[in-house]
Amino acid sequence: MILIDGKETATKIKLEIAEEVKKIIASGGKKPHLAAVLVGTDGGSETYVNYKVKDCEQVGFGSSLIRFDENISEQVLLDKVKELNEDPEIDGFIVQLPLPDHIAESKVIEAIDPSKDVDGFHPVNAGRLMIGMPCFQSATPAGIVELIDRYNIETSGKHCVIIGRSNIVGKPIASLLAQKRSPGNCTVTVCHSRTTNIKELTLQADIIIAAMGYPGFLTEDMVPEGAVIIDVGTTRVKSDQTKSGFKLKGDVDFEAVAPKCSYITPVPGGIGPMTRVSLLLNTLKAAKKEVYS
Amino acid sequence: MILIDGKETATKIKLEIAEEVKKIIASGGKKPHLAAVLVGTDGGSETYVNYKVKDCEQVGFGSSLIRFDENISEQVLLDKVKELNEDPEIDGFIVQLPLPDHIAESKVIEAIDPSKDVDGFHPVNAGRLMIGMPCFQSATPAGIVELIDRYNIETSGKHCVIIGRSNIVGKPIASLLAQKRSPGNCTVTVCHSRTTNIKELTLQADIIIAAMGYPGFLTEDMVPEGAVIIDVGTTRVKSDQTKSGFKLKGDVDFEAVAPKCSYITPVPGGIGPMTRVSLLLNTLKAAKKEVYS
Repeated sequence: MILIDGKETATKIKLEIAEEVKKIIASGGKKPHLAAVLVGTDGGSETYVNYKVKDCEQVGFGSSLIRFDENISEQVLLDKVKELNEDPEIDGFIVQLPLPDHIAESKVIEAIDPSKDVDGFHPVNAGRLMIGMPCFQSATPAGIVELIDRYNIETSGKHCVIIGRSNIVGKPIASLLAQKRSPGNCTVTVCHSRTTNIKELTLQADIIIAAMGYPGFLTEDMVPEGAVIIDVGTTRVKSDQTKSGFKLKGDVDFEAVAPKCSYITPVPGGIGPMTRVSLLLNTLKAAKKEVYS
Repeated sequence: MILIDGKETATKIKLEIAEEVKKIIASGGKKPHLAAVLVGTDGGSETYVNYKVKDCEQVGFGSSLIRFDENISEQVLLDKVKELNEDPEIDGFIVQLPLPDHIAESKVIEAIDPSKDVDGFHPVNAGRLMIGMPCFQSATPAGIVELIDRYNIETSGKHCVIIGRSNIVGKPIASLLAQKRSPGNCTVTVCHSRTTNIKELTLQADIIIAAMGYPGFLTEDMVPEGAVIIDVGTTRVKSDQTKSGFKLKGDVDFEAVAPKCSYITPVPGGIGPMTRVSLLLNTLKAAKKEVYS
């Protein structure tokens, strides 16, 4: 069994990005700049956004954190999006989700210029992903594909069973892995809450991607010998073994499943760090105008 | 076995559309107008475009056919697209594919205003489809969903195996049928040329959608008792039984497969007419500004 070390891989990629930033600056270019918009004071969102800013510092990107009170009107937020779209200093930006109920998320996302949409949530980027055009891929699926690629895991002709159909993980990773390219060329099955025979399907899989946010869902009896297991779940559960009283738990019963696998990602230290680094990779692409010229 | 009569259903829908057009006009509205752009003189494209214009006449739509020589420059075509985008008389328009090699199809498609993109090929519409937002669905998958709906075929929790991963059929129908809605909520498997065990997968299916353009590919031994079979294939093959010397053949070995099925679409007279009628439904939606307001 090979443990897929997302943390180590992400660290390596950050060093690669930092090198590239140095080269850009040495050749007279400006450093890539990511802006993050945070509305309200949700604890989770606050943590995520702080990580993103810290990641930027580590690789030499510029970053801006724009905070709004949770009572901000939709129009004020849309005006800020417009301003960021037009600001040549900003290469890419994100609006941290979820937004308060009185603001239409889809309206805000559609207001973002697709060429600065480094979260890859704009329908143009989702559509380009589906039809195999250059795009900003959303961070988690991009991180999964990057890991599969760096670990030289064969995907062509393999059966990938995905559990979960969210817009930011299940659907895009299904599209990416079915595409005619490498990594890709998988036969792909998407299961979800209405699927009646998940175990029957996972037992036929070469690759299983668990992304439903149900801690420990994928048990040993659901996994065939030699499968590749990608665990996207990160649920905060109570724990008496940590100082905080909480720990992150994946969708896979890691201890029992790991011995059967050819490859497996741990939680934490698997897909999480790769998701964070994908945002940096997208911002670098935006700065280099690699997707939209 | 119930034969799904796409021709009859399409005729019924056309009457419904014609009724609605009458009402729009009676209440002082303008009749919906579809424009089709045809570049060159490819026989297949010519036939398709002529059908589309004829369909418009049948339901009381206005239509325009804009022809260009195959040596037209990309810029002239892009200028025409811009003109159609801005013309308030035109509710929706299509640029018939394929285009000559010297014109970048993706550039032309992305130039179309998504709110007039009744073929549903623009990345914004493909992306909205994937994430479950209102959109113009491309015609064939929209026709399939409409038939499933009108025949009250249960999809929730059913396993749908799709053979083919094209941007205009396989990928969008996979997205549509996996969505959390009705028809939808299917477990979806996408197979393609790199899939090594198609038969093993189709034998587990409740619904099989054959869309690879390989006449007679799906044989009796690949189909479980009671399955629903949707045949998207329409390949022109030689025939000594028709005046033209050709006939349309589907991807399903109809004679052998039909007795085992609960439902099956014939070729011709199944998905083909529904694809044509879907373009009319999209044009009506465009005229009523139901998707983009």
